[in-house]
Amino acid sequence: MILSEVPTPAFVLDRTRLRANCRQMVARCRALGVRLRPHMKTLKTVEAARCALDSEHGGIAVASLNEAQFFADRDVTDIQYAVCMTPDKLPRAAQLLKQAPRFSFFVDSAYVAKRVMEFARANHASFRVWLEVDSGANRTGVDPEDPEVFKAAIALAAPPVIFEGVATHAGQAYRAASMAQIRQVAEQERRTVVAVAAKLRAAGFSVPGISAGSTPTAVQALSGEGLSELRAGVYMAGDLFQVSLGSLGLQDVAVSVLATVISQSRRHNRIVIDAGALALSKDRSTASGMGPDMGYGLVLDVGGRPIQPELSVCDVHQEHGEITASFPLPFNEMPIGSRVRIVPNHVCMTAAMYDRYLLVEGSERITGTWGRTNGWS
Amino acid sequence: MILSEVPTPAFVLDRTRLRANCRQMVARCRALGVRLRPHMKTLKTVEAARCALDSEHGGIAVASLNEAQFFADRDVTDIQYAVCMTPDKLPRAAQLLKQAPRFSFFVDSAYVAKRVMEFARANHASFRVWLEVDSGANRTGVDPEDPEVFKAAIALAAPPVIFEGVATHAGQAYRAASMAQIRQVAEQERRTVVAVAAKLRAAGFSVPGISAGSTPTAVQALSGEGLSELRAGVYMAGDLFQVSLGSLGLQDVAVSVLATVISQSRRHNRIVIDAGALALSKDRSTASGMGPDMGYGLVLDVGGRPIQPELSVCDVHQEHGEITASFPLPFNEMPIGSRVRIVPNHVCMTAAMYDRYLLVEGSERITGTWGRTNGWS
Repeated sequence: MILSEVPTPAFVLDRTRLRANCRQMVARCRALGVRLRPHMKTLKTVEAARCALDSEHGGIAVASLNEAQFFADRDVTDIQYAVCMTPDKLPRAAQLLKQAPRFSFFVDSAYVAKRVMEFARANHASFRVWLEVDSGANRTGVDPEDPEVFKAAIALAAPPVIFEGVATHAGQAYRAASMAQIRQVAEQERRTVVAVAAKLRAAGFSVPGISAGSTPTAVQALSGEGLSELRAGVYMAGDLFQVSLGSLGLQDVAVSVLATVISQSRRHNRIVIDAGALALSKDRSTASGMGPDMGYGLVLDVGGRPIQPELSVCDVHQEHGEITASFPLPFNEMPIGSRVRIVPNHVCMTAAMYDRYLLVEGSERITGTWGRTNGWS
Repeated sequence: MILSEVPTPAFVLDRTRLRANCRQMVARCRALGVRLRPHMKTLKTVEAARCALDSEHGGIAVASLNEAQFFADRDVTDIQYAVCMTPDKLPRAAQLLKQAPRFSFFVDSAYVAKRVMEFARANHASFRVWLEVDSGANRTGVDPEDPEVFKAAIALAAPPVIFEGVATHAGQAYRAASMAQIRQVAEQERRTVVAVAAKLRAAGFSVPGISAGSTPTAVQALSGEGLSELRAGVYMAGDLFQVSLGSLGLQDVAVSVLATVISQSRRHNRIVIDAGALALSKDRSTASGMGPDMGYGLVLDVGGRPIQPELSVCDVHQEHGEITASFPLPFNEMPIGSRVRIVPNHVCMTAAMYDRYLLVEGSERITGTWGRTNGWS
């Protein structure tokens, strides 16, 4: 089968580019002297996890318990749920731990740390717990100067709980205005979490792990000193926002949405495709990024080559995407029924609309499909 | 089971409100003297279709062939695919027609009309076709003054094709600045499509159906004269954007996302929930609507009552939603582990992230679940 013959919209993953992106991040983390913990929240597929894992290590990160279950069911044993645990989720966490003996999760308060310990003792669950620290993202994580750091560490510092260490995510890298600023954020991320670990160690706590990361900070970091691992995920796929942040080049982006032209209006200089808000997502990250605003996605031909002059999807409705431009559109090259591919703004959002990926390797020929998981059930 | 006991995030549908919204639209269309064709693109569940259908009629609209297949598999026979057909989708359309004898679709060009006729003749497929007309949305549809109207109608005016009539969707209602403007749009939608039908009839064509609609125009229309049917869908569920457009009241919205508080920071006046960009969608419709900007959703307590003073989800990450405010947040009333419900901006986007709905009827007790379809496979 080739891309021109399958139903649209569909999600296309270039395995050659995925492999190259994965290889590069493994090499980068080795050069920094840290373990790579690939974050599977973007692609949520076991084949991509196998591709992304450094053969010398073996752990992944996930962003939902559904993902954790999906990978545990597929024999991944080291799964870090990189989100704050809540008491109501502990029974599921205990189940996961039975399947995946290195399943771990985050807490960012003494309150939850105490609930974790109570549950662990009552249920003989050797929970593995990371203390999340805020390194400037202002999302979750204890303030590094807050005495809560010690209160939480004390609450976790006894069997059967295993204190894994400290973790952070400098999400403010996504608000950076320049590459220099991303490098500063990477350094802030590293220094913050390493300093908290040092403070805890000085107070007598054992802090085996120091986990940090995001794709932009992992790509731009000048040092990995003190860190034990870096978490990153979207680098495997790439998207327009990551291109604008300098995480990879457009030619490295491994993902696109295959769509069909369904309507043309020469009078209004408009071409409409069958990939709209659901097929592409409503993410508008490039509107406030470091690069140009790419609307709801960049238009490629079916072979994956950018159309010249550059075209983007300017507006979306549920199942309609509108391509307009300040110059006459190439109506003859894009007749009704013809195929295009759209590079998404934010692949984590776009990929979540599909339950499988069509694999290609540089050409239009489909060489396989991969299934992914979605949702929270 | 009650809402405080189930895994989050989850999608909650209040069946009592759904029923009331459905009853009201049936009554409204009867008063206007038009058939109601409920659009199932929002809820994509057969139980909601049964609730929405006027017992005197029986047709629905859908926005993807996957939805068409889903409803055809569940014995719905009158299914209008209210999107422009393309030649590559005709084999699937022919299959659908065998299952659902009143399956129909849109075309908006003589080019596709001719391909439809060729395929119909070659494959003995009595396709039922609507000619889509643009009534100001500038999305798809033939311009009403364009000679293409006649060219397409001629191409469709012979057996085995069955020309169903003309259809339009005044999507510009969503860009209206006042209720008065929505009423004007409703009138423009009706007059445009009725005028095209009259022109075709004057030229000797049989035009049995005249289809128009959207929730805002169906709610605000002062006249249904000349129309045979109105299509609307989001009214069943409602959302913040529909409230801002005056389509229904906040107390009528039947949907919300159940979420758990996962982190608090009194220092930063921030509460974080486990419903983020995937669980809520990145839709920001209320940012440019007629009412206040509600961020990524309005916060209700677990019983479905608005929290006072009003709170909204101000920022989202993939699995994190941030609640902040200009006044001190109610930390004691929203401890870690407690539940809230979030009314989404745009339910069509939010509901698509779930494969089932938790049903409630005014209380926290879950009275059942409904499955829905998603995707395009």
